[in-house]
Amino acid sequence: MRQRKFWGWGYEDEDLDVAAREGLRVFLADRFGVDPMPVTPPPALAEVELPKPRLRPPSRLAEICSQDKRERASHAHGMSYRDVVRAYRRDFSNPPDWVALPRTEEDIERLLDWCAGAGMVAIPFGGGTSVVGGVEPPPDRPTVSLDLRHFGRVLEVDRASRAALIEGGASGPALEEQLKPHGLTLRHFPQSFEFATLGGMIATRSGGHFATLYTHIDDFVEALRVVTPAGVVETRRLPGSGAGPQPERLFLGSEGTLGVITRAWMRLQDRPRFRSRLAAHFSRFEDALGACRTISQAGLYPANCRLLDPNEALYNGAGDGTQTILLVAFESADHPVDAWATRATEICGDHHGEVPPGHEGAGETWRDAFIKMPYRRDALAGMGVLSETFETAVTWDRFESFNQEVLAATSAAMADAGAGRGWISLRFTHVYPDGPAPYYSVMGPARRGQELEQWQAIKTAAADAISKGGGTITHHHAVGRDHRPWYDRERPPLFAQALRAAKQKLDPSGILNPGVLLDP
Amino acid sequence: MRQRKFWGWGYEDEDLDVAAREGLRVFLADRFGVDPMPVTPPPALAEVELPKPRLRPPSRLAEICSQDKRERASHAHGMSYRDVVRAYRRDFSNPPDWVALPRTEEDIERLLDWCAGAGMVAIPFGGGTSVVGGVEPPPDRPTVSLDLRHFGRVLEVDRASRAALIEGGASGPALEEQLKPHGLTLRHFPQSFEFATLGGMIATRSGGHFATLYTHIDDFVEALRVVTPAGVVETRRLPGSGAGPQPERLFLGSEGTLGVITRAWMRLQDRPRFRSRLAAHFSRFEDALGACRTISQAGLYPANCRLLDPNEALYNGAGDGTQTILLVAFESADHPVDAWATRATEICGDHHGEVPPGHEGAGETWRDAFIKMPYRRDALAGMGVLSETFETAVTWDRFESFNQEVLAATSAAMADAGAGRGWISLRFTHVYPDGPAPYYSVMGPARRGQELEQWQAIKTAAADAISKGGGTITHHHAVGRDHRPWYDRERPPLFAQALRAAKQKLDPSGILNPGVLLDP
Repeated sequence: MRQRKFWGWGYEDEDLDVAAREGLRVFLADRFGVDPMPVTPPPALAEVELPKPRLRPPSRLAEICSQDKRERASHAHGMSYRDVVRAYRRDFSNPPDWVALPRTEEDIERLLDWCAGAGMVAIPFGGGTSVVGGVEPPPDRPTVSLDLRHFGRVLEVDRASRAALIEGGASGPALEEQLKPHGLTLRHFPQSFEFATLGGMIATRSGGHFATLYTHIDDFVEALRVVTPAGVVETRRLPGSGAGPQPERLFLGSEGTLGVITRAWMRLQDRPRFRSRLAAHFSRFEDALGACRTISQAGLYPANCRLLDPNEALYNGAGDGTQTILLVAFESADHPVDAWATRATEICGDHHGEVPPGHEGAGETWRDAFIKMPYRRDALAGMGVLSETFETAVTWDRFESFNQEVLAATSAAMADAGAGRGWISLRFTHVYPDGPAPYYSVMGPARRGQELEQWQAIKTAAADAISKGGGTITHHHAVGRDHRPWYDRERPPLFAQALRAAKQKLDPSGILNPGVLLDP
Repeated sequence: MRQRKFWGWGYEDEDLDVAAREGLRVFLADRFGVDPMPVTPPPALAEVELPKPRLRPPSRLAEICSQDKRERASHAHGMSYRDVVRAYRRDFSNPPDWVALPRTEEDIERLLDWCAGAGMVAIPFGGGTSVVGGVEPPPDRPTVSLDLRHFGRVLEVDRASRAALIEGGASGPALEEQLKPHGLTLRHFPQSFEFATLGGMIATRSGGHFATLYTHIDDFVEALRVVTPAGVVETRRLPGSGAGPQPERLFLGSEGTLGVITRAWMRLQDRPRFRSRLAAHFSRFEDALGACRTISQAGLYPANCRLLDPNEALYNGAGDGTQTILLVAFESADHPVDAWATRATEICGDHHGEVPPGHEGAGETWRDAFIKMPYRRDALAGMGVLSETFETAVTWDRFESFNQEVLAATSAAMADAGAGRGWISLRFTHVYPDGPAPYYSVMGPARRGQELEQWQAIKTAAADAISKGGGTITHHHAVGRDHRPWYDRERPPLFAQALRAAKQKLDPSGILNPGVLLDP
């Protein structure tokens, strides 16, 4: 059984090797125009000190509650740059008091009862891949991290409707493995796929594989079962309905504040058999933008439609840093998709794009880099490289000025924070007929010992620009604790009141993830 | 200026002519095996008696409040069979006390303040096309019907994002007329299109033109502005977001109970230039079902994919009553859709469907009948023909047994209620990858003088079967007052509590459409 790192992304045996790490370090120092920075070794569990649990579980819950050091440390935070920096500092000063490992819904109910009675906080925990402080205990209250790892099964498959009843703790690979014999797939691949769980994806409205059309997990949820402190909510399996406000939508994006998602009926896909893909190269960014917008509004619905700006293409092996690249791919389980790809190629040509032969694999190159990114990010943080991402969505009419403002504000903040020799790259993760979901990656030299302040300054400038420019503070990273100030600006105040009132019915003691989405 | 009927569907000058009406009467009597029934003349306004208004508006609101008899009578109910039967009986015994015609949001706020202060009910009123008692005053409280007819403009068009800011009172034709110069269309055509307003469509989650893919109005709402008794809620224009539970979703399906939708940014379509359509004929219903399901899961996304059972095809001029017909149509503003139609034709062939040449127009024939249906229904009700519809959505795995149960329960109830010589027809209005939205039409001889009891018995049997079989009580007709008992069974009880708590924040005096969705 492979062991996950307790302090960052992935498995312990899957880190970058020494040569790769050293190569990256020298390369980046050269790019930044600085001397290679010293490498901080990853934390060992023995170096970590945890405070003692403040409360003890009642004896009837003792067997499903752990105070194991590794468990508590690995539930102390998520996977953001901020989290990894704290891990390198051996700072695990605010772990959950207990990690609970329920095996049944009754276990969850009893745990919630305990928390309500004892004034403890309960934080539903899936893959722990939050990059927004979504699974971190509040600073001042005893906390139980409620780990769903024993809820990992596909319980039922409905082949005719292409749907399955899946438990909330099933990870991406685990659920795909169980669906495979049925020829079906959820085909939802957030970057966190390897560890993220279905319940976590639903609670955070994760964005998936498809670049267009149905892509947020929202669209694939047919029905939900949620254990709340006030009782169980179970919705009806329906392909569509017009009966009042959709109940599932209250829990989609609830980020562990309203209940624990124990099961969901999910809409699935047949495994694709036909594929067609292209990589169009554009000398001018605006042309690539025009092609991307036109494809997004053409009703072609490519599975991939990912614009990479020159920096993004360069740093992920898909281009030479001079051109903007648009990766387009069609897939189908039912029919060849040549007619679709032919039309997309025409559209790229109409916008002065070139589709050079032999570059069809650029999408795969990019995807491989994409999957390795979190591993690389952990290594980078240890060698003094500030590396983080932020993402949004905005309508097409605003995008160009919006993008300029965001880049300008972020660059200025990087310069102020001593990371002026770094860079920002941009890609679109998803495109809708009315606008793209831009995703920015920032890399620069860290100020050793002040990484968190440095990052906070950059993050704040970027988020302020996004918010002011009319974008959303998150397209698929969720709100957590980190995005609260901007979420509060974006969300209509009366909606916040209505949501709070709804929460008070479902979680009357306010034990579920207080501070996330709503103030405690 | 053409005048709408105060008592039923459409314009006064657009009723069936005498010959058409008489032909229908003789034809149906023959089909039912009864003597032609006497015709009740439509009500004249002079025959209608209204109770006096129970309260008077304060002088500052007097000029936007009307007690005009025609206004009050035409706001007394919607357009269901039940409503039309009561109209033929000259029963307008429970009209709103006043019809308010606000011109600004400030007018709406002042009207809501008046209602809150005086304990009056406010019912947002768009086209008045509800078929579920959604705009009918409660029996026991003074009521203002809040008519949005002066909110009919398209305020702003964003060509790049294909979106427009449209006022809540704009009817289908009015908003299309204003979008046309921009080459854009909402392309949302519920049967009520001619009179239904955007705000009403949003409040009731109407189902639109497209048979597959994005079709509920939900998917086309980019942002909303809602005047609630507690203040204005305005959401941000976003192509997509993952920031908490989606605020628009609270108001989608709120049916006038949470606020008045004054504006919405709507996602639009380019006007289609390419079309391809086919009508496949199937001797066996199950084969048609298999083809329909396969197409719905193939990723072809036809604009039309309407299954008509033999009865439905016969009574709407699309078939001879022996075959099940599947109407499939593709449309695009961007590219020819032949490859798409070719594949759909292959799928029909795989399921033993025949696509005879020369029948491509069956879709248009059916659509013409569809548009005239509400006019015809009014005439039918006057000649003693019970004529109503009910609709649902259910997953594919359950559909066949579900359909048998619904047909059996409805037929038995029709026989018990003296309409055993009538018939039920079925079509699919929409199909999703995980299930169809079946739509049933019932026609039979009415029991004169007991039409409401007769219908209630049939409706109850059908709705009980739908609910028991796992369907939704409404795919796009909404809940209103008529569907409450089954909605209450379908909706998770804790979600009802959460929704009620949210309502109490937005409508603390409980003045907005009490009894709809939630008990007062």
